[in-house]
Amino acid sequence: MFVTLNGNGSLQQQVYEGLRRAILESRLGPRARLPSTRSLARELGVSRNTVLAAYDQLLAEGYVVGRVGSGTYVAAELPDAMLAARRAEPSARESGAPQPRLSTYGERVRRVDPLDVPGTSRTHPAPARLHYDFRYGTPSVEEFPHETWRRLLARRARRASVHSLGYGRPEGEPVLREAIADYLRRARAVDCRAEQVIVVQGSQQALDLVARLLVDPGDVVVVEDPAYQGARKIFLAAGGRLVAAPVDGEGADLSHLPPEADAARLVYVTPSHQFPTGATMSLCRRLELLGFAERTSAYVVEDDYDSEFRYEGRPVESVQGLDRRGRVVYVGTFSKVLFPALRVGYLVLPEPLVPIVSAAKWLADRHTATLEQEVLADFIAGGHFERHLRRARAHNAARRAALLEALAEHLGDRAVVSGANAGVHLLVWLPGVPAGAAPDLVAAAARAGVGVYPVAPYYLNPPNTAGLLLGYASLTESEIRQGIRRLAQVIAARG
Amino acid sequence: MFVTLNGNGSLQQQVYEGLRRAILESRLGPRARLPSTRSLARELGVSRNTVLAAYDQLLAEGYVVGRVGSGTYVAAELPDAMLAARRAEPSARESGAPQPRLSTYGERVRRVDPLDVPGTSRTHPAPARLHYDFRYGTPSVEEFPHETWRRLLARRARRASVHSLGYGRPEGEPVLREAIADYLRRARAVDCRAEQVIVVQGSQQALDLVARLLVDPGDVVVVEDPAYQGARKIFLAAGGRLVAAPVDGEGADLSHLPPEADAARLVYVTPSHQFPTGATMSLCRRLELLGFAERTSAYVVEDDYDSEFRYEGRPVESVQGLDRRGRVVYVGTFSKVLFPALRVGYLVLPEPLVPIVSAAKWLADRHTATLEQEVLADFIAGGHFERHLRRARAHNAARRAALLEALAEHLGDRAVVSGANAGVHLLVWLPGVPAGAAPDLVAAAARAGVGVYPVAPYYLNPPNTAGLLLGYASLTESEIRQGIRRLAQVIAARG
Repeated sequence: MFVTLNGNGSLQQQVYEGLRRAILESRLGPRARLPSTRSLARELGVSRNTVLAAYDQLLAEGYVVGRVGSGTYVAAELPDAMLAARRAEPSARESGAPQPRLSTYGERVRRVDPLDVPGTSRTHPAPARLHYDFRYGTPSVEEFPHETWRRLLARRARRASVHSLGYGRPEGEPVLREAIADYLRRARAVDCRAEQVIVVQGSQQALDLVARLLVDPGDVVVVEDPAYQGARKIFLAAGGRLVAAPVDGEGADLSHLPPEADAARLVYVTPSHQFPTGATMSLCRRLELLGFAERTSAYVVEDDYDSEFRYEGRPVESVQGLDRRGRVVYVGTFSKVLFPALRVGYLVLPEPLVPIVSAAKWLADRHTATLEQEVLADFIAGGHFERHLRRARAHNAARRAALLEALAEHLGDRAVVSGANAGVHLLVWLPGVPAGAAPDLVAAAARAGVGVYPVAPYYLNPPNTAGLLLGYASLTESEIRQGIRRLAQVIAARG
Repeated sequence: MFVTLNGNGSLQQQVYEGLRRAILESRLGPRARLPSTRSLARELGVSRNTVLAAYDQLLAEGYVVGRVGSGTYVAAELPDAMLAARRAEPSARESGAPQPRLSTYGERVRRVDPLDVPGTSRTHPAPARLHYDFRYGTPSVEEFPHETWRRLLARRARRASVHSLGYGRPEGEPVLREAIADYLRRARAVDCRAEQVIVVQGSQQALDLVARLLVDPGDVVVVEDPAYQGARKIFLAAGGRLVAAPVDGEGADLSHLPPEADAARLVYVTPSHQFPTGATMSLCRRLELLGFAERTSAYVVEDDYDSEFRYEGRPVESVQGLDRRGRVVYVGTFSKVLFPALRVGYLVLPEPLVPIVSAAKWLADRHTATLEQEVLADFIAGGHFERHLRRARAHNAARRAALLEALAEHLGDRAVVSGANAGVHLLVWLPGVPAGAAPDLVAAAARAGVGVYPVAPYYLNPPNTAGLLLGYASLTESEIRQGIRRLAQVIAARG
């Protein structure tokens, strides 16, 4: 018999599938007449309705022609090539799928390999044995005001209207843009109106949109050295030629850039809390930066990813707030202060850039999910956000103090701490330990249950001394103390 | 007095701002000594602590140097250029912000103007007077199972773990990828494993990622004519040279393409329910399409945006399910069957494309929001999705019947309906009405409270006859009947 039932799915599906296979494998050739539904039903031991439904389906899909009941035939126009392909290479897809020919962008993405960033990006769950994981970017689940968030979420979900369920605006929900502008004016001295704010999927999308719209292959992009790899990889994928601005205790230094830097389209900086060194850019350097941008017509991308947590002095004023020439694109995110999985960030743009960024955002994904935007707007407008910031800042300050104490106690002058005055991470330099020894040290620490991350991959020109990146937002003070004690043991054991 | 309080914010902020302004405007020159905190406090009539805090802030930001209490001085190194800029052009930002120099991508986006798509994309709320708005893409709020969705949302929000709050995987949550693969195998004859599924921000991001990775400026992209403008604009923004494949009752016809089509990198099609004509691509054309892709090494992008709603016959098997050479990228979305604001769609990729698309997704926005993914996975795995589809299909079938009836009753042979056998929209051709008359007709209908949308903008080569796009998912049957009655009156009044 030419039709066999394979036992998968409903009887109708099995009959349909058996006939389809017979047609595709030419056991039922083009123009062949199918048996009557009645006789096939009898032969297969199924009801006639089942066979009728299968025939209808084959008819709807063009495998067969003719009117059901008065004779049904295999369609004449099934190209033979396709049938041959089926027979000759049943597993061609599995074995011989072609290697894709990529665009030049795709080739650059392949070379850049964005998923290869130790400790920060692959984001596979940390191995269970890392009891003390100083991974950067892991949120603190305890501090997050789940109850409030859930209440706001439920309220918005209950009120869901056509507006909330339908397509939103590419720039973001007006209520959230207002709330963000309000907060930034108040807390960060960002000089902006809600119309300049565009809501995006985290700062990653903000940087990607800016790179797409402003950087052509071969264009110069000035980046801090070291820098956040996610940003650097975006600029490399865009085809940018990276020029490194070395970072010291005052932040990025633009005063000794090579002449080609004058052609820069973008300068990417993290002035509030340089990533990963933690330096705060001095006012002098900020003004130099703006001067450079004005002179070269470059845009400054100010990535203010975590300046909400500051432990000494009030938050420093943004570069954007100093700018009088519309040269600064300010980028912020809720990933660090709320939680990364939210995927909400924002751009504050000079007005001439607003329409083109809206358009590019529309093309990229139309808009960011509405519910998250509405809940976040409620969270900010209701004062919960700043309340949460105050609480989280206090918790993080205690963690930081524990970390600094533990480092002093267990490592003493074997460790030099940098960048501890803000954020939720710091750098530990290990004077006398060569940079090349860091990977082994990190591996040894991991075997002892301590997750620390080498700083070298963040550098274009890595330093000679080993440095470790320690995030502390998701650990308790006691975990921090024990983790550092173990880390010190590992370091001591290695001489 | 050189410090004036402007009345905005706390006293401390006012003192800080007044001093900062005095420094930036050189009323307090470089190296000038600030008054003691005690004397300034007395002068301003504020507490000394307020002034101390303001001084601390200025110190932290580098405007002043020296130790508070033992003498505080304006920093020496404020570049004069910046100060001059401040004075000379106080409102430079507002009045003279430079026009941005864009990348070639940015220039193309500007030319393409993605926000200019009538009725579908600007998505500003429809004017209130459109009582009968046949806008495509508006969700049906009544049918959506709010209660179930809210319950699943609350459960996931309650259980939020480090995993759910931290960074997710670029490919999407495994639980959702499994649920999607499962559903597609069962319902759409898509041949896939969960590893081939990548979760994205709606089908828009799916298309954008594919275009970025596979299309270089100047590359040929074959698009259906007419086609979804959001797709066409993505390919134009990528610099693609569009070659039109005309659409008839059997879907896109690739048999008469010009020779340059042989260099195509992509063929973009909507085989299940062609957008906007509604045609279902015949099996013969599907096999021709695959033959073309194999011969030219192009990828087929199969956008299956709404085939879940089918009113005659079972859903037609996907092109992806017929492919044996790994040439099909299958794109789906929950925007049409659940709601657009969710922003969740997916790609089903030939395996060699999975790593590069993951990498590009990471660069673009790291990943799609986790909560939505988890809730959606629960919704599918719990059977709610398919239950919802069945209910929504029945409702939409009733709307469709009402629409077809009303069109027959009120317009008779003045209207020819196309594409009604699936989806939530159909096309109405008005034989004898020239295409050029459509905008006026649409405007007249809008004045009568009826929103209909001309089909011409979807064409590269528009037809001579006027055609209207009518979406019906968000209207009641009675609204549909009344809307069509009014539309017929408008048409009759115009002769």
